[in-house]
Order: sequence, then structure tokens, then C-alpha cells
Amino acid sequence: MGGGQLIDEFGVISKYFRPLTGGNAAALDLADDGAVIQSASGLDIVITCDALIAGVHFLEGSLPQTVAARALRVNLSDLAAMGATPVAYTLALMVPSGTPEKWFEDFASQLLEDQKRYGICLIGGDTVATPGPLSISITAFGEVPCNSALTRSAAGVGDRIYVTGNIGDAALGLSALKGDLKQCDKETIEYFVNKFLWPEPRLSVGRGMRGIASAAVDISDGLLSDIGHICVASNVGAKVWEVSVPFSSRAESLISTRTALRSQLMGGGDDYELVLVVPEKNNQAFCRTTAEHLVAVTEVGVITGGDGVWLVDEQGATIRTEALGYKHAF
Amino acid sequence: MGGGQLIDEFGVISKYFRPLTGGNAAALDLADDGAVIQSASGLDIVITCDALIAGVHFLEGSLPQTVAARALRVNLSDLAAMGATPVAYTLALMVPSGTPEKWFEDFASQLLEDQKRYGICLIGGDTVATPGPLSISITAFGEVPCNSALTRSAAGVGDRIYVTGNIGDAALGLSALKGDLKQCDKETIEYFVNKFLWPEPRLSVGRGMRGIASAAVDISDGLLSDIGHICVASNVGAKVWEVSVPFSSRAESLISTRTALRSQLMGGGDDYELVLVVPEKNNQAFCRTTAEHLVAVTEVGVITGGDGVWLVDEQGATIRTEALGYKHAF
Repeated sequence: MGGGQLIDEFGVISKYFRPLTGGNAAALDLADDGAVIQSASGLDIVITCDALIAGVHFLEGSLPQTVAARALRVNLSDLAAMGATPVAYTLALMVPSGTPEKWFEDFASQLLEDQKRYGICLIGGDTVATPGPLSISITAFGEVPCNSALTRSAAGVGDRIYVTGNIGDAALGLSALKGDLKQCDKETIEYFVNKFLWPEPRLSVGRGMRGIASAAVDISDGLLSDIGHICVASNVGAKVWEVSVPFSSRAESLISTRTALRSQLMGGGDDYELVLVVPEKNNQAFCRTTAEHLVAVTEVGVITGGDGVWLVDEQGATIRTEALGYKHAF
Repeated sequence: MGGGQLIDEFGVISKYFRPLTGGNAAALDLADDGAVIQSASGLDIVITCDALIAGVHFLEGSLPQTVAARALRVNLSDLAAMGATPVAYTLALMVPSGTPEKWFEDFASQLLEDQKRYGICLIGGDTVATPGPLSISITAFGEVPCNSALTRSAAGVGDRIYVTGNIGDAALGLSALKGDLKQCDKETIEYFVNKFLWPEPRLSVGRGMRGIASAAVDISDGLLSDIGHICVASNVGAKVWEVSVPFSSRAESLISTRTALRSQLMGGGDDYELVLVVPEKNNQAFCRTTAEHLVAVTEVGVITGGDGVWLVDEQGATIRTEALGYKHAF
């Protein structure tokens, strides 16, 4: 990221980050040791924290705009999974020495765009130089009416498992960025890459699921892994119908040439769609709500007794899936 | 940090970090996408965020215990400066590959000790592997009665400037750790090093200053820099009497052999003492409160009109100090 004019931390804060507070009183103009938020009565505050590192969570040399969007949106996706309305965030930005001022400008301009899109603002943070790769930690804050946050821990036996949107496009986008999808046409590559670079947190349908879903999670590690997280937290098992898992027509056409890809994509991460677990009795309300929010949802399985996530293939054979998702080993 | 048994992220979370929630309901057992805190009526939530990187904010190869204490306490020091009572924190931990399980064990055990000491608990976070140096970002939450958080922006002309404790011992500790204080005896080295490694957030006196101090800041960048931050935020200037700045007797004895050290220490960081700005009318309440909290405070200057921080030497000569503190350049 060398070349171009350099800038110091106070310059970055006053020139690029202070405008991101939008004058919100909580941020105290980023001039203080911390932010102050006034808690509204009747609301709980939902807090989520995700760290992203260049070369691990996004490719080295990614555009600052896509890094900014990803860092913010993966946190908003967590808020979506909990049924929360995003409010604000803090940003810890660890930047390699020699990063030019233009990088900060582009990074902040995308944050501003996303702030408008999602109705949030920056309220604090820390900007430091690192000898390591670009690393970003965001803590995001949302609100839900008291005691109505969705969690992973209340899935009940017999509840149906739904997913929003399609699975696997983002994993294919990452493959494409690594140069591994040479057989696809330019438009298809672009489609997959956009799905990876610009995740769309499912905020409105997440909010709509308060009081309807018994459990929810966003798909960051991979569909089967994340259903597994619900199973562990709720002390239940799950069956997933392999043929029901929704793929885009572009992904389907790739799967048709390489069948092993189907299960790989069910284990691939970065979809940022929602897994929604819905008790039978709420099914009508569920259908009404997803229709209202114009979100495609697909029933992919059912919560069972026992434990583990079991994949049922077309012939009805059932195999226990192991964690196929990404896991950080040290 | 090689050698020893390795462990993956879910292992680290369940074995070492889940116990740090102390069963606090807000943390949802770290099994969810986020934490949920119930906002109590009549209280504002103060949020602070600090990032620390090995080789930048602490020495490479530091013991996990001292890294844990530092990462948490620098955040608590920000809460102290705002008059807040600490409640909880999120932890984004970016750990080099090959870090042995023992490291996590020691890191978590110190967090647990500090949690008991300061009455807080872990409510969420993210643990990831990094190809770079160990990096930690903590976002800490505190409470204050509505509209009573101390800020940097309300210092008034004529207000007196106080500091708690002594200045410069931590900077000398860092020098000692780098092997630069060979002239000192072992006990003195140990004294300075402890001051650097184990900062003590001034929480009780910070809380006591609600309604008394017009402005406050913790000294992380350096005494003069941090007074400068108050001046900028409050749109005022400050005079600091050089001879009034309090040093420990051990620091004084070093200064007596090298007079340039005095101004270096006023610019050195990491003291984590508080600068308290107090209007004349609150002086009695201020003295009563510091006495109650058994905290030594020293009057070091006065808020003036104009701008900038001006150092007044023994002869009465006044020079404008430039920012002597540490600044991250990119």
C-alpha cells in the first residue's frame, strides 16, 4: 500500500473519522476517552464484535472500499441474526506503516456510504500503526425491545429450519478471486465475486423474526457449521435435506459439472444469509413476514432430538456431518 | 511463542473464555452472535475502545499475564477518566499461529483475576489467527448516572489542573525493559518496570469526580499531550508549572543526574494517572473527595484563554510545548 501522501493518527481521526459520527452526541466528536450512549427504556442493547485480518478474512491488497464494507457488514449480519436494529459502532483500525492517505479516504468514504444505508454512525475507536497485516476490529451496537433478541439457544424439536437467499455464491466468489474458476464467463465471475465482496446483512427479515423464530444464526462459518452452532447452544440435533439447500442457477450449473461441489458449498462460509428456526405454530406468521420483506426463504431441514447435524441425501441415506466450516487453528 | 500443545478457536472459547463470563446473562454463554445488555433506567453507557499490538504497545515476548492486564486496564483507565463504573467488555484477540495452549491459559487466568479486581466480565468477542504480531482490541462498557460522564470538553478558564500519583515512572519502566537504565539498582528497576507493566486505573477517584471536575483525561500519550487534548476539546489553553509536576523519589534521583529527563518524562506516555480539571468553586469538594479515596493529587497548572499548553519554568519563563507524546504515523 506504499506510495502517496502519508498522514498521522490524529489527522486520520479529524479528517476522515470525525465526519463519520454525523454529529451524533454519543460520539462526543471522537474527542474523548469514550462514547456515551443513553439507554432508552424498554430496549435492550445487542453488542457484537468481529475481527478481520488481511490475508485471512479478505485477500491482501483488497480495495479499501470492500474492506470497509466487509468489516462493517459482517457485524451488522450478527445484529440481523439477533433481530436487532443497528445503532452505532466502534472501530479499532490497525494499519500497516506506509499506508497512504488515499487509503483512509476511500475506507472512510465507504463507511459513510454504509452508515447511510444502514442508519448507523461511528462513536469511537482507536487507530494505530502495525508492523503486521491490516487488521480491523469492529464492535457494533443494536437495539431490540426488551427480552426479544433472537438467540441460538431456544430451538425446539420439530421446529423447521429455513435459510434466506442462496448458499455458496460467496465461497465461489472467493474461489474466483483466487483465480480458481477459469471455466466461468466474465458475468458469472462478477456475480460470484460481488456476492463475496458485498455481503448484504439480512436486517429487515431478522427484525421481522422477533417473536416468530425460536433461534437464528447468520451463516459466516458455513451452512452446516452454523446450524451446528444452534444445535449445540439449544442442545438438539438437526436433519438437513441435501436436495433442498438452495443454490443460485449459476452455482447449480457449476455443481452439475462437479457434484462434489454441492457439499463443499454447504460447508463454505461467508454467505451472511440467515438460518431461521421456526416452531410449527409460527409458520403462518413466518410466511407472512418473509413475504412482506420480499425475502426468498427455503425450508432445508428440521430440528431433532439427539445431537449433531445430519445430512439426508436424495436416496434418504443419512450421514452425520462433521464441522466442514472454517476454523481458526493456532 | 512456539512449542507446547496447540488448540483451535472453539477450544479456546469454550475452555478459557466462556468461564470469564461468570455466567452473566448478557454474555449468552458466548454461544451467540452477540451479547445483550439490559439498559438500566437512569444510567448512561460509556463505551471505550483500545487496540494494542505486540512490538508497538507492549514488548514482543511479553508474558501473557502482563499483556492481558495491560489490554484490559488501559480501557478501564479510559472509563476512569469519564467517571464511569466498569461493567463488561468484548475482546477481539488476534493471535499468531503456533501460539501454545498454555499462552491462552495464562492470558485468561489474568483476565479472570482482573475481572474480580474490577468487578467486570467478558460478554463477547472474536478469536482469530493472524500471520502478524499478537494484536488485541478491547471494547469496554461502563455506567454513569445520566448526563454525569466526565468529558474533555468543559474545562473553563481559571480552572485548576491536577494530576493523580506521579508522572514518568512507567516511561522509565519501559526504558528499563529495553535495557536503557543500567545505572539503577535492581529494586529501582523493578519499581519502574512494575509501574509500566501493571497500570492501575484510577477508577474510584474518577467516579468521585462526577459533578466536581469540569474535564478529565487519562494520561496515555503523555502529561503535556493529554492536557493538550483537553485544551483542544475545550477550546482553551493551559499553563503547567514545571516544578510542580510530581515525580517519584526514584525518578527525581534520576532527574538530578540528567536534567533533560524532566521534560522527557512529561512527554512520556503510559502513566494512566488522571488529569483532573477543577473549577475554583469545587475546590473544597475536590479536596474532600481525593482525601476520601486516599489518592495523592498535585496541582500542576491552570486553564487559560488562548490555546496551546505552555510550560512555565522555575525562572518564570514560558515556552509553548509542542506535542511531545507518542503519535502513530502511517
